[in-house]
Amino acid sequence: MYELGVVKRNINRADRTAADQLARYGATTVHEAMGRVGLMKPYVRPIYSGARVSGTAVTVLLHPGDNWMMHVVAEQIREGDIVVAAITADCTDGFFGDLLATSFMARGARGLVIDGGVRDVRELTEMGFPVWSKAISSKGTIKATLGSVNIPVVCAGAMVNPGDVIVADDDGVVVVPAAKAAKTAEAAAAREANEVDKRAKLGAGVLGLDMYKMREPLEKAGLKYID
Amino acid sequence: MYELGVVKRNINRADRTAADQLARYGATTVHEAMGRVGLMKPYVRPIYSGARVSGTAVTVLLHPGDNWMMHVVAEQIREGDIVVAAITADCTDGFFGDLLATSFMARGARGLVIDGGVRDVRELTEMGFPVWSKAISSKGTIKATLGSVNIPVVCAGAMVNPGDVIVADDDGVVVVPAAKAAKTAEAAAAREANEVDKRAKLGAGVLGLDMYKMREPLEKAGLKYID
Amino acid sequence: MYELGVVKRNINRADRTAADQLARYGATTVHEAMGRVGLMKPYVRPIYSGARVSGTAVTVLLHPGDNWMMHVVAEQIREGDIVVAAITADCTDGFFGDLLATSFMARGARGLVIDGGVRDVRELTEMGFPVWSKAISSKGTIKATLGSVNIPVVCAGAMVNPGDVIVADDDGVVVVPAAKAAKTAEAAAAREANEVDKRAKLGAGVLGLDMYKMREPLEKAGLKYID
Amino acid sequence: MYELGVVKRNINRADRTAADQLARYGATTVHEAMGRVGLMKPYVRPIYSGARVSGTAVTVLLHPGDNWMMHVVAEQIREGDIVVAAITADCTDGFFGDLLATSFMARGARGLVIDGGVRDVRELTEMGFPVWSKAISSKGTIKATLGSVNIPVVCAGAMVNPGDVIVADDDGVVVVPAAKAAKTAEAAAAREANEVDKRAKLGAGVLGLDMYKMREPLEKAGLKYID
Amino acid sequence: MYELGVVKRNINRADRTAADQLARYGATTVHEAMGRVGLMKPYVRPIYSGARVSGTAVTVLLHPGDNWMMHVVAEQIREGDIVVAAITADCTDGFFGDLLATSFMARGARGLVIDGGVRDVRELTEMGFPVWSKAISSKGTIKATLGSVNIPVVCAGAMVNPGDVIVADDDGVVVVPAAKAAKTAEAAAAREANEVDKRAKLGAGVLGLDMYKMREPLEKAGLKYID
Amino acid sequence: MYELGVVKRNINRADRTAADQLARYGATTVHEAMGRVGLMKPYVRPIYSGARVSGTAVTVLLHPGDNWMMHVVAEQIREGDIVVAAITADCTDGFFGDLLATSFMARGARGLVIDGGVRDVRELTEMGFPVWSKAISSKGTIKATLGSVNIPVVCAGAMVNPGDVIVADDDGVVVVPAAKAAKTAEAAAAREANEVDKRAKLGAGVLGLDMYKMREPLEKAGLKYID
Repeated sequence: MYELGVVKRNINRADRTAADQLARYGATTVHEAMGRVGLMKPYVRPIYSGARVSGTAVTVLLHPGDNWMMHVVAEQIREGDIVVAAITADCTDGFFGDLLATSFMARGARGLVIDGGVRDVRELTEMGFPVWSKAISSKGTIKATLGSVNIPVVCAGAMVNPGDVIVADDDGVVVVPAAKAAKTAEAAAAREANEVDKRAKLGAGVLGLDMYKMREPLEKAGLKYID
Repeated sequence: MYELGVVKRNINRADRTAADQLARYGATTVHEAMGRVGLMKPYVRPIYSGARVSGTAVTVLLHPGDNWMMHVVAEQIREGDIVVAAITADCTDGFFGDLLATSFMARGARGLVIDGGVRDVRELTEMGFPVWSKAISSKGTIKATLGSVNIPVVCAGAMVNPGDVIVADDDGVVVVPAAKAAKTAEAAAAREANEVDKRAKLGAGVLGLDMYKMREPLEKAGLKYID
Repeated sequence: MYELGVVKRNINRADRTAADQLARYGATTVHEAMGRVGLMKPYVRPIYSGARVSGTAVTVLLHPGDNWMMHVVAEQIREGDIVVAAITADCTDGFFGDLLATSFMARGARGLVIDGGVRDVRELTEMGFPVWSKAISSKGTIKATLGSVNIPVVCAGAMVNPGDVIVADDDGVVVVPAAKAAKTAEAAAAREANEVDKRAKLGAGVLGLDMYKMREPLEKAGLKYID
Repeated sequence: MYELGVVKRNINRADRTAADQLARYGATTVHEAMGRVGLMKPYVRPIYSGARVSGTAVTVLLHPGDNWMMHVVAEQIREGDIVVAAITADCTDGFFGDLLATSFMARGARGLVIDGGVRDVRELTEMGFPVWSKAISSKGTIKATLGSVNIPVVCAGAMVNPGDVIVADDDGVVVVPAAKAAKTAEAAAAREANEVDKRAKLGAGVLGLDMYKMREPLEKAGLKYID
Repeated sequence: MYELGVVKRNINRADRTAADQLARYGATTVHEAMGRVGLMKPYVRPIYSGARVSGTAVTVLLHPGDNWMMHVVAEQIREGDIVVAAITADCTDGFFGDLLATSFMARGARGLVIDGGVRDVRELTEMGFPVWSKAISSKGTIKATLGSVNIPVVCAGAMVNPGDVIVADDDGVVVVPAAKAAKTAEAAAAREANEVDKRAKLGAGVLGLDMYKMREPLEKAGLKYID
Repeated sequence: MYELGVVKRNINRADRTAADQLARYGATTVHEAMGRVGLMKPYVRPIYSGARVSGTAVTVLLHPGDNWMMHVVAEQIREGDIVVAAITADCTDGFFGDLLATSFMARGARGLVIDGGVRDVRELTEMGFPVWSKAISSKGTIKATLGSVNIPVVCAGAMVNPGDVIVADDDGVVVVPAAKAAKTAEAAAAREANEVDKRAKLGAGVLGLDMYKMREPLEKAGLKYID
């Protein structure tokens, strides 16, 4: 249950080195490195392709059609943060545009993940401020109701605690608990190193069937080849 | 982030009296009594109309197309519980049917809330075992992958901790944190008492405009009447 | 474009006899009688089955998450009206429940059509107050922003002018312009009379192919029968 | 690829006894008896609850907004058939209503499955003619373009050959190839018999964990119990 | 209610200077300048990014799967127009492709907004003819049923009168009533001028909290800062 | 009904010349050349724009959340094939990424069409391996359940037989039966040739109304011009 009307100023951000490093591996590898958990739903999409960022989560809870708390969260942003915005009910309004992005960038934010809509897409693209959102919409919002800042939120189906690491790219958005950031970075690095060799073999025509020794288990499971 | 492969046996269930009492008020009144938070998304719908239940949450995390953990969670059910099933990715398969319902009922469960599909709807209706689900589907599932039982989960956009109170009816499903169950029951009772008088007045033709003294604030906001 | 902050008190309601009579034919027949236009999108569904009503439209424009204007429109309801609620952006919140229904009924309303969510479904069903809505949701709303009453609105894809006739049943919702109500009632009556004979023939085993003399045009279009 | 403008008169209907018998088991059990295949997508829903039918498929291919071929297929219906209607592109129009149902019933049809919309829901319910559809819509259709009758079609994601058995109930719609009808009926009967004992045990409080001997494989997979 | 079978030749187009000028500000600013109304639903998306146009609306009403009227509307296009196509029921077919675009461009059209599907996306992109549509689909259409040209239509949830100004870009599509075009252009210009200073301040690190003097109202509303 | 656990090694691939040639015309022209059939649903979208390929279908049937058979199908790929992946129930998981793409490319595949999700979009784009998918998602899959390879499948609403020609581009995906590949290529070529002249005329300002001689049939249908 969400607590409303609260701004938490001090949060435990994940280890900076780990938080920064995770962008290198991308959402998919990090998701695998954590054991296939932590993903937001795939309806959250980047407004332009090619961005790949990681950073520490600063969270904000908004109400449908109301972006008042966006100005409150701006003050809590530190260098290397990514803002994660949850909404208390489904809403595609444009909660965020180029003015707020200017402010967020000035505060050191690396991007925004929002379970709602965004606008000024052309300007945001030119500014190089990446946003992952549920919708693109010009629809304006009001400033009338209190939400909260830096409380745990559910964004696009994923639990996000303030200070968690967010990794986002063309594949989607993944959340790494602050306490697991360093270990996940290690696991991701190992996973990536491991893939270099596999990629070379597969590129040379070796089949996954052989490389992963799948023929026997497939046969055991009953797979039949016919002509 | 979800921890996989874990079953927590001892959970702190909400106060029984409060948990039982909340059904009386229904999802909408309880949601309002908590300050308009705690709702699951409205895509979770009852498989038959008219059921209204409350109980303590026992949670289970499933993987798409795999209902193995449903048998694990059955053992953790106590009298007065409602099972809350989350899935690690969107899936409409039929994770639950009349056999599992027979088992759940024998263990004392009052219902199931699932962010996925359910089947044997006719039989479940005849048994009087209410289910709130995202879909109805005959699609069978396998038993191959570990999830968890009684960890905090996100179900239909809402955070559910084991032991929380679930209130579900034709309007939807609301989650009350265990620690707030008693206070919420009081607030809901007060709210309901307060509505009796209002209902009588409105039924007698008094307008909300007058009863809630809205005419002045509406005029201030600039509302104009024209002919 | 919507004009905001306006309540129009005097509207030209459709002829009462025609408005009342159209319920007899239902949404589908009336839609056909008008030449296959005037339908709302099929996502607007009745909260309970079996209701069939017609009445004159009183319109209200709401903002997402804000039901303030619902109290304003209540005062404009007269005996035989149906309230049509449009929202300025997609929203599934529960804008309407049993208290407002009590007020609407006391004012003489026959039902509500809303391009948003509704709650207290069990109570509304018991009261016999039919609602056609996009969603069912406990989500509460605020009272902060002005919309309008009795302006032309777009509801579920259909243009509705205040005073138009609304016909709603299990098949959906159709809008009849006030000026065409009487003529449409005639056409619907004729259509229905015409169907009695057709129904008897088809029930006796006569094929539509023969009754509608379709064999020749089908052959001309190139239809081939093979064994 | 669909062949257009063709009506196949002679089709190989599944064994009548098997086709009739499958209704007894319902869509879910039949789906399981076939090895978990053959289901239509769960967006196809019954227009009223409680119907459970099986019968031999007569197929029809329609174009969006055009129900001309519905009259052509009527002539091909024999006692015990269920009409399966596919559309060449997504469309929610009301292709079918009470007049066509009267004709279909007179020809011996037991129901309709349509990957589109249906109307006259109240009348169809009163007539007891069950329909599984993607939508309910008053929207009328024209009669201008040729489709086909009794060709193989894709309906709601499932391949249907004329003569296949269709089993439909509240859980959904399943397709049984004509050649497998008898064997599937046997497997379904066996499955159902097998469930009687299981149901009794589960109802007596025996856990699936023990009945299905799952404790050891779960432990092997790494499941951990904590307090 | 739509009148079918009508082509209106003379329409009152909005002031040309205002219509042309509005593209400069884009959909979001124009929407705000009108008081946050006039938007189409966000499911209407550009087929390629970066286009930003404004022009006077020429409207066409189509039936699902039928693009006959597209050829009728072509004749009514004048230099500086944008065609707005509504459909009488949901349909994703490809009503428009490169041949029609060639014709529309030759007549002076600046773009198309369609509440349905479009095809030949690669060719349209190469030609630089922007389209905002609900879907991209190769599905062909027929030419069999009359719609209308230059009647008021509902497109993607917005009312469009012939002659209104359409402003469309990556953020979406907004409709400006012809009579309000000049005034809206002024308001948009003022709004944009006003944002230059704000952007500079926010870029320099000034917070919206201070710039908009939000701290006091937030405190009044009950916002609490905790550590 | 799908047969599970089967890999068919020898399939009848469409004529190579025709299969290769069809890419030249694109999905829309090929769809028209076949008589407006054979399209997949428009929710299958390319992961990057601009690709246009044709090739012979190698099919694979997967279960939700399980990509085991992707490794089995890899072995069956020959130069010039396009893999078509169907899933037994709706699932947006990322069944395919850059490692599998490396393997598929090494085997000679020209692309993938999948009725599910894909990941490593950035890498796939860099590799120039085009994918048409229902979703983009990092969600990993397991390897536990047998599907089949080179059986007839339903993918995004279209029937695909192994060996059929797949044509895919920005407009969507179309399936050409192997036996009709050569004839369809001819028809597509003729259609394209025919469009050159039309395009020139339309570009010169000739109206479709005149070029297609539509004025008379439109008048006959009752079209009225008003001022």
